[in-house]
Amino acid sequence: MTGFRFELLATDGAARTGMIHTPHGTIRTPAFMPVGTVATVKGMHPEAVRETGADVLLGNTYHLMLRPGAERVAALGGLHAFMRWPHPILTDSGGFQVMSLGKIRKLSEKGVVFQSHIDGSRHELTPERAVEIQALLGADIQMQLDECLALPASRAEIARAMHLSLRWADRARTAFKTHGHEASGKAIYGIVQGGDDAALRVESARALVGMAFPGYSVGGLAVGEPQDVMLKMLDVTVPELPADKPRYLMGVGTPDDLLKSVARGIDQFDCVMPTRNARHGMLFTRFGKINMRNARHAVDPRPIDPESSASAARDYSRAYLHHLVRAGEMLGMMLLTEINLTYYQELMAGARAAIGSGRYADYVAGVEAGWAKGDIAPV
Amino acid sequence: MTGFRFELLATDGAARTGMIHTPHGTIRTPAFMPVGTVATVKGMHPEAVRETGADVLLGNTYHLMLRPGAERVAALGGLHAFMRWPHPILTDSGGFQVMSLGKIRKLSEKGVVFQSHIDGSRHELTPERAVEIQALLGADIQMQLDECLALPASRAEIARAMHLSLRWADRARTAFKTHGHEASGKAIYGIVQGGDDAALRVESARALVGMAFPGYSVGGLAVGEPQDVMLKMLDVTVPELPADKPRYLMGVGTPDDLLKSVARGIDQFDCVMPTRNARHGMLFTRFGKINMRNARHAVDPRPIDPESSASAARDYSRAYLHHLVRAGEMLGMMLLTEINLTYYQELMAGARAAIGSGRYADYVAGVEAGWAKGDIAPV
Repeated sequence: MTGFRFELLATDGAARTGMIHTPHGTIRTPAFMPVGTVATVKGMHPEAVRETGADVLLGNTYHLMLRPGAERVAALGGLHAFMRWPHPILTDSGGFQVMSLGKIRKLSEKGVVFQSHIDGSRHELTPERAVEIQALLGADIQMQLDECLALPASRAEIARAMHLSLRWADRARTAFKTHGHEASGKAIYGIVQGGDDAALRVESARALVGMAFPGYSVGGLAVGEPQDVMLKMLDVTVPELPADKPRYLMGVGTPDDLLKSVARGIDQFDCVMPTRNARHGMLFTRFGKINMRNARHAVDPRPIDPESSASAARDYSRAYLHHLVRAGEMLGMMLLTEINLTYYQELMAGARAAIGSGRYADYVAGVEAGWAKGDIAPV
Repeated sequence: MTGFRFELLATDGAARTGMIHTPHGTIRTPAFMPVGTVATVKGMHPEAVRETGADVLLGNTYHLMLRPGAERVAALGGLHAFMRWPHPILTDSGGFQVMSLGKIRKLSEKGVVFQSHIDGSRHELTPERAVEIQALLGADIQMQLDECLALPASRAEIARAMHLSLRWADRARTAFKTHGHEASGKAIYGIVQGGDDAALRVESARALVGMAFPGYSVGGLAVGEPQDVMLKMLDVTVPELPADKPRYLMGVGTPDDLLKSVARGIDQFDCVMPTRNARHGMLFTRFGKINMRNARHAVDPRPIDPESSASAARDYSRAYLHHLVRAGEMLGMMLLTEINLTYYQELMAGARAAIGSGRYADYVAGVEAGWAKGDIAPV
């Protein structure tokens, strides 16, 4: 079995390309990780997700601990076997969803007590229990439990949550080692918090680096702030992180967010946008965003993109996809999901190749020119 | 191009096996036709529908004439190209859905004026327009427009609707020939009506046979009556139909309905049951029906049926399918649909082989024994 290891292959300015080796295989970076919230990427067979080019999936600890339950997933062989994804899996800690979906009963130094949004049952997450749950799921890469605030928030509130998250990081790191997960080749990332305050971000990053995590996440962004605030936070945070460890920007984002964050040294991303937007008829393509509900597609026999590696983008007419979306058909959601996930993977594959050959800026300029040109004219 | 032709290969009692040749390929009979209401079998890629063993799909004229519209489908190359199903397609006439889904404004000798259930727009279906719409869609096999009653109904009402349907059959047959569809190798079936009245069924069948249709449907059954009434109607109707033409029992049914109807000489079936029930967590299997919502599946690592030709039945655990169904996930509906459609196709493939070798009764007894034995015990 291969243990967790980050291999840096090339840099181009702050942008990097490399490989994260895990017990279930290698993740090529920069990497986009499709979200498989409840042990499925919505509307996709696992083999089809793989065919989009995905190396790694994200599983949501909050959802899985509530249903079917971490102990049950473990009894069934772990999340990889359960959902038939034999490749790397990263799990979040559950903290973000506890705070956005659950009903919090008590947030304390110890952890958080909350009620399930499904059946109202009461649960507790502590830094130690979050490690245990993610180990039961079998995640190759875990996240520490953190407290994630929505922005805007007061500096005092941001500082309080960031300091609590640091103390939880230390407990998570200890639990992860103590229970042998590090020895078994798995990894846990610390999460930089600090809201939109540069000094707090730097303080958080330095403290986490002192705990020597195998990787670092940047959390608490893409929570309502403008893109330039997010990028400014990356500008101050990333230089604090060690070059030989992977960096994961949580919950981000649009294709443009990804390219600009890669330029600042980010290696991993996850976001529901390509999958969720697909279910609402929105496509991400080489030509920019396309709303398939728009009547201009109704009689258009052309495919979305004949150069896509997705069959859904090459082999079906725009008229047919429009019809499926308008009729609310499952197949429409399935095909649009395939198109979006494939586009995100192609975008990252292009970034990796460009960084490898030292022409990342040109690559970004070319992609942006394609978006600016816009979709091909209707027939 | 092959024109429409029915080739009878073997009989076993009243049961028959054969091949229906059409311009888009051959249908092996007895055949189950999955329902692709709005130009998609819900939750299935067209290639995956084909892999279940389906030779032919059913398209719903009512839905397609309203959205995206028959003229639009024709402009986009016809239904085969539109939905990427290059194999045979049979369409119904729209009459059944007009009466069950639409709001009827006027039913007259001429036809039916109704309002769309989607947007309230007003439309007219006549026997001639139903032929035209189905030709625009490009159906290999059309149905005549008929009036389909729900049972129970009075004898007078059944007789009135049956006689109207006969006059419409004559007009449809004429329109079909006049417009060259017969010459182009397509077919239209007449529909036997008469409710649960044996004499009316016989009268309807004889009159239709006098019009020399290329095939015959039995309509107005599976509309609320007990199974024995349906089978009794087949017992009196089928002997009136010519042996050298295919016979299609519309909207039927359960696996048991299919086996008993094949025994009475039926060649073709369609039904939403395998697809609709799948979306509600119900499976049809060699072991009988299985409700995947049932808690007994929650920790069961075994597949649904290791001998199924469906990957969904072999490669996923019952626990995982249960989880997906409970969570309302699309992938659950996709996998269960694949399992049910595959089972229906395997059931018909078994029937064809058994009839071919003169052991249909044994085949049915074996299948029924499997259902009676019930599902394998939970772990």
